[in-house]
Amino acid sequence: MVSFTFAAAAAALLSVVSAQTFQRLGGCPTLGCVFPPDQQDFLAGQYFDIRLEVHAPVNGSEATNGKPDTNFTFNIGKVGEAAQPAAKFFGLDEPKLEGWNFTWYEDLFARDAFKPSVVNVASKAYRRVALYTPGEYVATLSYNGTNTTAYWLVRDIEEVRKTKNVLLFIGDGMTTNMITAARLIAHKQVNGRYQSTMAMDKFPSLGHQMTHSLDSFITDSANSATALYTGHKSSVNALGVYADSSPNPFDDPKIETIAEIFFRLWGGHVGIVSTAFIADATPAALTAHTRDRDQYGAVIDSFIHGIVNYTWTQWNGPDVLFGGGAEQFYSPSLGGVTYKGLDYYKVFADAGYDVVYNNTELQAASTSDRILGIFSVSNMAKWLDRNVYTANLKNQKNSPDGSKGDAVDQPGLKEMTLKAIDVLQTRSAANGDKGWFIMSEAASIDKQMHTLDYDRALGELLELDDTIKNSIDHLTKIGQINETLIVVTADHGHGFDVFGSADTQYLNAQKDDRSKRNAVGTYQNSGESQYVNTGSLRYVDSFFPANWDPRYTLAQGFGAHPDVRENYQVHKDGPRLPATNITGFPSTDYFVNPKDNPTGFITNGTLPTNANQGVHSLTDVPVFAMGPCHETFSGVYNSIDIFYKMAGCLGLSRPNGASSTNQTKPGSNDQGGHYSGPGNWGGPHNGVPGYQQYGEGKPMYGPPGW
Amino acid sequence: MVSFTFAAAAAALLSVVSAQTFQRLGGCPTLGCVFPPDQQDFLAGQYFDIRLEVHAPVNGSEATNGKPDTNFTFNIGKVGEAAQPAAKFFGLDEPKLEGWNFTWYEDLFARDAFKPSVVNVASKAYRRVALYTPGEYVATLSYNGTNTTAYWLVRDIEEVRKTKNVLLFIGDGMTTNMITAARLIAHKQVNGRYQSTMAMDKFPSLGHQMTHSLDSFITDSANSATALYTGHKSSVNALGVYADSSPNPFDDPKIETIAEIFFRLWGGHVGIVSTAFIADATPAALTAHTRDRDQYGAVIDSFIHGIVNYTWTQWNGPDVLFGGGAEQFYSPSLGGVTYKGLDYYKVFADAGYDVVYNNTELQAASTSDRILGIFSVSNMAKWLDRNVYTANLKNQKNSPDGSKGDAVDQPGLKEMTLKAIDVLQTRSAANGDKGWFIMSEAASIDKQMHTLDYDRALGELLELDDTIKNSIDHLTKIGQINETLIVVTADHGHGFDVFGSADTQYLNAQKDDRSKRNAVGTYQNSGESQYVNTGSLRYVDSFFPANWDPRYTLAQGFGAHPDVRENYQVHKDGPRLPATNITGFPSTDYFVNPKDNPTGFITNGTLPTNANQGVHSLTDVPVFAMGPCHETFSGVYNSIDIFYKMAGCLGLSRPNGASSTNQTKPGSNDQGGHYSGPGNWGGPHNGVPGYQQYGEGKPMYGPPGW
Repeated sequence: MVSFTFAAAAAALLSVVSAQTFQRLGGCPTLGCVFPPDQQDFLAGQYFDIRLEVHAPVNGSEATNGKPDTNFTFNIGKVGEAAQPAAKFFGLDEPKLEGWNFTWYEDLFARDAFKPSVVNVASKAYRRVALYTPGEYVATLSYNGTNTTAYWLVRDIEEVRKTKNVLLFIGDGMTTNMITAARLIAHKQVNGRYQSTMAMDKFPSLGHQMTHSLDSFITDSANSATALYTGHKSSVNALGVYADSSPNPFDDPKIETIAEIFFRLWGGHVGIVSTAFIADATPAALTAHTRDRDQYGAVIDSFIHGIVNYTWTQWNGPDVLFGGGAEQFYSPSLGGVTYKGLDYYKVFADAGYDVVYNNTELQAASTSDRILGIFSVSNMAKWLDRNVYTANLKNQKNSPDGSKGDAVDQPGLKEMTLKAIDVLQTRSAANGDKGWFIMSEAASIDKQMHTLDYDRALGELLELDDTIKNSIDHLTKIGQINETLIVVTADHGHGFDVFGSADTQYLNAQKDDRSKRNAVGTYQNSGESQYVNTGSLRYVDSFFPANWDPRYTLAQGFGAHPDVRENYQVHKDGPRLPATNITGFPSTDYFVNPKDNPTGFITNGTLPTNANQGVHSLTDVPVFAMGPCHETFSGVYNSIDIFYKMAGCLGLSRPNGASSTNQTKPGSNDQGGHYSGPGNWGGPHNGVPGYQQYGEGKPMYGPPGW
Repeated sequence: MVSFTFAAAAAALLSVVSAQTFQRLGGCPTLGCVFPPDQQDFLAGQYFDIRLEVHAPVNGSEATNGKPDTNFTFNIGKVGEAAQPAAKFFGLDEPKLEGWNFTWYEDLFARDAFKPSVVNVASKAYRRVALYTPGEYVATLSYNGTNTTAYWLVRDIEEVRKTKNVLLFIGDGMTTNMITAARLIAHKQVNGRYQSTMAMDKFPSLGHQMTHSLDSFITDSANSATALYTGHKSSVNALGVYADSSPNPFDDPKIETIAEIFFRLWGGHVGIVSTAFIADATPAALTAHTRDRDQYGAVIDSFIHGIVNYTWTQWNGPDVLFGGGAEQFYSPSLGGVTYKGLDYYKVFADAGYDVVYNNTELQAASTSDRILGIFSVSNMAKWLDRNVYTANLKNQKNSPDGSKGDAVDQPGLKEMTLKAIDVLQTRSAANGDKGWFIMSEAASIDKQMHTLDYDRALGELLELDDTIKNSIDHLTKIGQINETLIVVTADHGHGFDVFGSADTQYLNAQKDDRSKRNAVGTYQNSGESQYVNTGSLRYVDSFFPANWDPRYTLAQGFGAHPDVRENYQVHKDGPRLPATNITGFPSTDYFVNPKDNPTGFITNGTLPTNANQGVHSLTDVPVFAMGPCHETFSGVYNSIDIFYKMAGCLGLSRPNGASSTNQTKPGSNDQGGHYSGPGNWGGPHNGVPGYQQYGEGKPMYGPPGW
């Protein structure tokens, strides 16, 4: 996307395109960039940096004279009040002017032709500012006789603490669809009734979250973790910063994370647990601040030291840091790849941490001390291999001490999380009980879904559920269950869904489009939705695409399908017929319909050859309810329950027999008993007016604070 | 699955198999069958039938002497009380003995070899009984010296009516993943913030429902609608009955539906609306009672007459019936295929209905009369063709009057639903205002997903959302919004998920394995989860599969993948590597890993050829929360909100500036201001103890009433 070169620009002129697969800079659609950009929300008092950039493209579809306006100004003020220059507003010296250039490809054709676009940049950065008074602010960058305006909202949240502890579980890549499959393979049903259910199923409140990034609708674990920990969305690969265009991956504008704020304001204790290599994005985003998640060494250093190269917040290190990734810790003399070549086991030990390498040592470690626990090279072993196919633990040469032995005594997520709870609670209680925040990540749900190893991925999910169950039991036992907010969520999804069964004995007993595929853009290259950003279709008080046929469409599908030819374009000539039997009845042998999507590429099917369509899948589906009895629809439950909720709400139950006082003969106007006439139904449940209710976190009908 | 023949049985002996792709009879794992089967729930006073069957297989893995015990007995009683013979318990004459036989294939090998198993049956049926007193009942079938025991639960629901009206929207096949995609293509984002959202997003309560059927984990629209309308799961293809094994598709044991009960007990008004042919499963299941959803003629007759061949409940017809499927209405002289060859437009007209054929007539129709509105042959036109590609409405020859003209003036789901509300409310108000129940189905979300027409499917979903929004506005305007429980849900899912974007201009500009696939079983052939029903792995107080390597596994995957070879079996030798580049670095051209799943079949990839793994997808993901502030996590919202909920709950907001009285210096024990010490955090939100709360519809920790 952004490559850094100081070479002179090529003068190639490209046709005007609306960039999508690639972007000049996410969050900056014009030539004047403000970070944080327009439409961002802030926590009152949260530290953050500001970055301004003025772009002067040398060539390409946005070509200028190549000279950025170095006299740009930047003013900020609360809406309704006078704006001031930012330096004055925040009480800082005026930052010094910076400059660089970068190149990018406007689209895949340009990339194939090696025709980059070059951009010269003028920039300034304001470091560690904060906004306090709730309400809307306007920040205006003025350059080249035009403006970029960013509206910022400081959310109106009162300063009242309602929980002592927070336990945040992240099932990386985990969807409702996967939970449904995990439930199916681990919990018994009798005639449709589950005899037991997941720990997750029993939580009293259910929500959905939208995972899209700042500038692409598909996200990665780095910017999604940033969103969860800071309240600010960012770009793919970014940890705790908005991604700017400068060459330096560490100078991007930072945003303070929940771990940093909690420690700063309360002296709260923080625990970080993951089954990934610990420098991986989801744990990293708690303390690291860089545009580039692959800066593993800097990530490890940020865990213990925080940010030292810029004015930022104080950070003294977590109480526990548990996971894999030993190669970022042991000395280069053993093959480690570490920050500045240091032995980070020694760095942590010198700072007072106990260092443990396996589950035996973890269990024995004192709960009064801070603990660094690194249990393998790279990602930790999977539950399935630790518990069932244990021979796979051998010959891995992954011992965290760098000795090339095998790490055969690894803890699971459960052991690590329970220990973290004990350490943080012990240390908090000994220190004024300011409370604790633990993040515990089941990282290999995602990693095993990536490699299509469904069994291992579902095993990791079941391990997460087991960890949740045991954590709840443990918190109850130690008297902390009413002091702890527990949240279980994911960072993003995978398009996984179950669609049937397979007779493997039958399968085992039985005896060749590539270039077109390269048009598909993934992760940051997914870009924005062209269905609303282009086109001229308009609707009265309804929401539908302005353009059903943009150049950049959605790439989509599912695992169960017949032979099909895909080009991801709308069918203008009528509903689609993807497969036909060429020889006609009585043949039931289906192939790609030769008339469907002739410009596309073929992918052969995964269903029996007599299937000409896709099939249903396993997943739980959402239920929405409002009006009387609506609260009874929250939670996770079985399809039949919907009937009982409606039937109960309609007064259809007859527990006293057929001759209840509320009997009504069909067609009769005669009502007896408890029916009190129209308009008086006992009112909405709990006095809440159903649809119009609004409270913290509850959606209201109208533009929401999204 | 079940085929009906009275020929003598073949004596072929098959190896013992645990049937999975096929079942002898769903809900009857032994040779004595009770319907409703073990573990079913009931509404107090709900009418139902009982069917008993004693099976005597002639050959195959369960072979007996082929003579069913005709002296079987059946007793029932409340748990803790003496059981009685069922006839006495229900005050009926002893039913007469019935008998038949049927054949089935035990697995795919048997089917390929044309080796059926034959079963002789003895049976009885008890018609239109009911249970009233809440609590558990035991029903015991005794035969051949053994028993089949069924535990039945009548749910303890009090008789208090809390809503006047119910408006049930069913997005057929609609998942959270699809809603996310629909939102993306119809609602604009700026830097990650949606400027508008779906009507569904704004509902105050969110839940998930599990869609599996009685006897297979993948369901269809018939038995899932049965579950939603009756509170009883059934088998694929079944409408309002449990499927028995008899040849007659209409003698299966029935269960009273919400429409029938509501009309019977309150004289309530019922409206049925769908964009499908109206005999399709989702509307049909409200009044039809048959094992076979394809009995379209009987379905249409049940809409107007209810069930006439058996003792059942009274039914006088819905106030409105709107949809497609004219071919089940107009006379055979015009080509119609109707019940007993009648003209059903005339049948409805003779019963007092106004009959309308297009949107113009629908709008003009009086709201005081009952209305039959049939607007096309087969399924109604899609929103995309009615609103954007309107040329596709021509030359369809689908006029509902049977004239072979074109139906170019079709209403959408919105027009039909708004009219239904007006008619039912007008008629209810004129008749003692007993209230109304409307079912409105967006049928072609599912139908267009089946044919992989993503654009049309999402268009149907957006139309559903527009219908919901307008229905809410309309109910508000007519003063019924506080009188109406609105529920939006699906019947089941499709494994659809978005995974990126596609540059179609670039795409357009660019120049075998079949028998193994037949091992995959879909719909009813998906059967039960062998991961818990077989195997010997055991766990202490944890839930994981007893068997990771059963014969019958899950068939699963997603739309975005590299070249891959699938055999749906667990990888015993370690984590999976599905794709490799054969020529090695620097090549980035990936193909199937030759060492992965050698017994499987290949499906080529849908991603760029330099991708060796699956990729992330678009979908919203679930959020679970408990403890303090947990209620703030219910609803649908953006990822960043999770940060604000946690940060708000931890008291991290500083709206009054940096020098608040709650400032704590890092590492200090000194606390000021509002912090009142451990154990006194303001308590759980609203006095609810977070995790242990239990109320109607809320899950409790422990075996739930699933």
